[in-house]
Amino acid sequence: MQRTKIAHLLQREEPLADLLIKGWVRTRRDSKTFSFIELNDGSCLKNIQVIAAETLPNYAEDIRRITTGSAVAVRGDLVPSQGGGQRWEVKASQLVLVSLAPDTFPLQKKRHTDEFLRTIAHLRPRTNKYGAAFRLRSELSYAIHRFFRDRGFRYIHTPVITASDCEGAGELFRITTLDLKDVPRNQGKVDTSQDFFGREAYLTVSGQLSAEMFALALGDVYTFGPTFRAENSNTRRHAAEFWMVEPEMAFCDLAGNMALAQDMIQEIIRFVMKDCAEDLELFARFVDKTLMGTLENIASSDFVRLPYTQAIEIIKQAGQRFEYPVEWGTDLQTEHERFLTETHFHAPVIVYDYPRAIKPFYMRVNDDGRTVAAMDVLVPGIGEIVGGSQREERLEVLEARMAETGMRAEPYWWYLDSRRYASVEHSGFGLGFERLLMLTTGISNIRDVIPFPRTPGSIDF
Amino acid sequence: MQRTKIAHLLQREEPLADLLIKGWVRTRRDSKTFSFIELNDGSCLKNIQVIAAETLPNYAEDIRRITTGSAVAVRGDLVPSQGGGQRWEVKASQLVLVSLAPDTFPLQKKRHTDEFLRTIAHLRPRTNKYGAAFRLRSELSYAIHRFFRDRGFRYIHTPVITASDCEGAGELFRITTLDLKDVPRNQGKVDTSQDFFGREAYLTVSGQLSAEMFALALGDVYTFGPTFRAENSNTRRHAAEFWMVEPEMAFCDLAGNMALAQDMIQEIIRFVMKDCAEDLELFARFVDKTLMGTLENIASSDFVRLPYTQAIEIIKQAGQRFEYPVEWGTDLQTEHERFLTETHFHAPVIVYDYPRAIKPFYMRVNDDGRTVAAMDVLVPGIGEIVGGSQREERLEVLEARMAETGMRAEPYWWYLDSRRYASVEHSGFGLGFERLLMLTTGISNIRDVIPFPRTPGSIDF
Repeated sequence: MQRTKIAHLLQREEPLADLLIKGWVRTRRDSKTFSFIELNDGSCLKNIQVIAAETLPNYAEDIRRITTGSAVAVRGDLVPSQGGGQRWEVKASQLVLVSLAPDTFPLQKKRHTDEFLRTIAHLRPRTNKYGAAFRLRSELSYAIHRFFRDRGFRYIHTPVITASDCEGAGELFRITTLDLKDVPRNQGKVDTSQDFFGREAYLTVSGQLSAEMFALALGDVYTFGPTFRAENSNTRRHAAEFWMVEPEMAFCDLAGNMALAQDMIQEIIRFVMKDCAEDLELFARFVDKTLMGTLENIASSDFVRLPYTQAIEIIKQAGQRFEYPVEWGTDLQTEHERFLTETHFHAPVIVYDYPRAIKPFYMRVNDDGRTVAAMDVLVPGIGEIVGGSQREERLEVLEARMAETGMRAEPYWWYLDSRRYASVEHSGFGLGFERLLMLTTGISNIRDVIPFPRTPGSIDF
Repeated sequence: MQRTKIAHLLQREEPLADLLIKGWVRTRRDSKTFSFIELNDGSCLKNIQVIAAETLPNYAEDIRRITTGSAVAVRGDLVPSQGGGQRWEVKASQLVLVSLAPDTFPLQKKRHTDEFLRTIAHLRPRTNKYGAAFRLRSELSYAIHRFFRDRGFRYIHTPVITASDCEGAGELFRITTLDLKDVPRNQGKVDTSQDFFGREAYLTVSGQLSAEMFALALGDVYTFGPTFRAENSNTRRHAAEFWMVEPEMAFCDLAGNMALAQDMIQEIIRFVMKDCAEDLELFARFVDKTLMGTLENIASSDFVRLPYTQAIEIIKQAGQRFEYPVEWGTDLQTEHERFLTETHFHAPVIVYDYPRAIKPFYMRVNDDGRTVAAMDVLVPGIGEIVGGSQREERLEVLEARMAETGMRAEPYWWYLDSRRYASVEHSGFGLGFERLLMLTTGISNIRDVIPFPRTPGSIDF
């Protein structure tokens, strides 16, 4: 007999006879002649109430010793609930104790701190909060795929293992099959010819350069995959491994790029508010009371378009002390970004046309010569959630920019090829998927929206 | 003015006035008073024919020198085609030459070998065949997500960076931030305490162990992400980086696991045959003439369920010479797998209950003590496409198996925890996504279904 998922039962309009459910016990309460069992199977946040009467043959032997966390299988009927608080309940005709959780089970019926739950990341999805967070992560992933597919974008799997450093930031994990106890050498240097790929290899920091090659063939494409930074910083916003969404569009300029970023963020937030209402409510009640207001604001606001030069003026005239002072030419810090979006505009803001000196080589140089067609989307509560640009499609300008930023052109021959052979205007951006999750849940630590987070010194599970 | 995609134009029922299309020129033919241009924008396999009359102001200057591969922007009207071979064509009112492809553009109008195209993997998606292959890759990814979401499965992003070796095969890429020129040592050993994670770290070979933790909380889950093998073999079937789909189901036994694998493969093949018919036809015509027959066979056959012990008997009685002889206890080679599915049964075959000695520690030991509840799905043309098992849910059996296979239990404390705390029956499998692509396209080399393949010595792009 096939089990029915609790999510399906709770949505029913009619009673149902002789069903089978399986799941984990959240609580057990006993009255004189029966027990109430709150059962959860992970299919949704809500439990279903099971009524187990003392007339069941294993009532004394099994049912009365069921502990929190134990696994059970229940046959019975879905009937209208006698008590308040729920529409349906299951009247058990048979209850099998599949597996008893011992007293040492760490998730007892009390509130646990996020810090403690991080130490048992393999068990925390069994809690209401983390169950909801990871169901939401799944639904948001789906929403992203649907958003792009509806618009004719193709999903591209760009390589994780790479020889190029897209951002030039140098915070790369090295990949090797060399024996670290005895690294082979040739003329004093590491003999990379003996390594698996015959040269140095790294974990990717972005799929963009690869995605550009596909945009210049298939039109509109996107990546959605893991990216990596070997940044030795322990903050609430950084992880060594995280997922990025990177659309890339042929025949698209910066204005089209900004429009897509706004569309995407708004459509996904509307999707979550509509299709994940139950899980979202948990976060709005217990994690961030301002969550629904923030999401409604983003979903309904026109995103402000603000040139960087104006952004600097606004920040300088803010009459507010910042930890980092700004001048034309400096990068914006999170405090400035949050000031713009939360305090000054009370709406999402897209800052664009940044100084060329603080941006990577691939961004298109504007006619003023001192700015590039870059854009960052800033949202309340998070700051930067999207960074993108129109790409430099002119071969000679691109080569000059590479020289200017001290990059060797040779490893990028294939990238430069795309500007040799029928180069066209194109644009794209990157969205940090975990930032989107933090935005939609109010969860403030990136470690709590990743199933098994990787941070300096932390690789358990 | 927004560009219209060619895929949309070709599907229209009605003419359309004053549209804008942008794309790359596949061919140009000239008559006395006008030129025919076959334009492709990657949105679909088919080109649209553009008619550019000599009355256009830049006809002599630009249009007559357009080369294969050049990018153009065309304004005009969609009108019924005068010539045969296509329903619609675009009569240009304006044609802008965006970017001229030089004579050195490698993709001239002739047939190129797959080997040559691999050396220009950044340009090959601009060909018909690879455009089709990567559109199909995108659509198949979507079909996988839809299949699972329709059934209430949650998508889990399991970590790429890991400290555990799921398969125990030892073919791992190491990840490090240590300086290979000067690896720090402590008492003669590599001082991993100075590495980013404070211990040895690797690229994952499977998300299964992590996914199990989530199945035991959320019920039905799946992963779909990159996995890695540092296997130094140059075959048509192996890449160092490839994508795997790994569903994992709580309260599911081996029979349920086999049923899901069959459902999944059949639904995805039906989806491809229906929704990707145009691209698929290219492969059926030019790559593998038997493709449609193979796919129809798989979509409509009941998959044979065959115990390993019987499979060995059948192979031994085949009256056919194999390179590798089989006996009870040996693993099946591709030649045996293909014999079973292609020659003996003429249908997909699920072989199950393999000898425990040749299978990993996490597979459930059967009551006979000498086999485990493993299953492999074999399909014509490919051999093994899915490998899975019911998982060993009994703590003491699992610990004994780890000891038996020489594994240290300590790094797997969290995995063993899941058997300490309300362990339940569960099952899952892995599907090699590239094998599925090879099956559905007839492409016989894995390098030709991955955007930028990673193999020994090969990390370009």
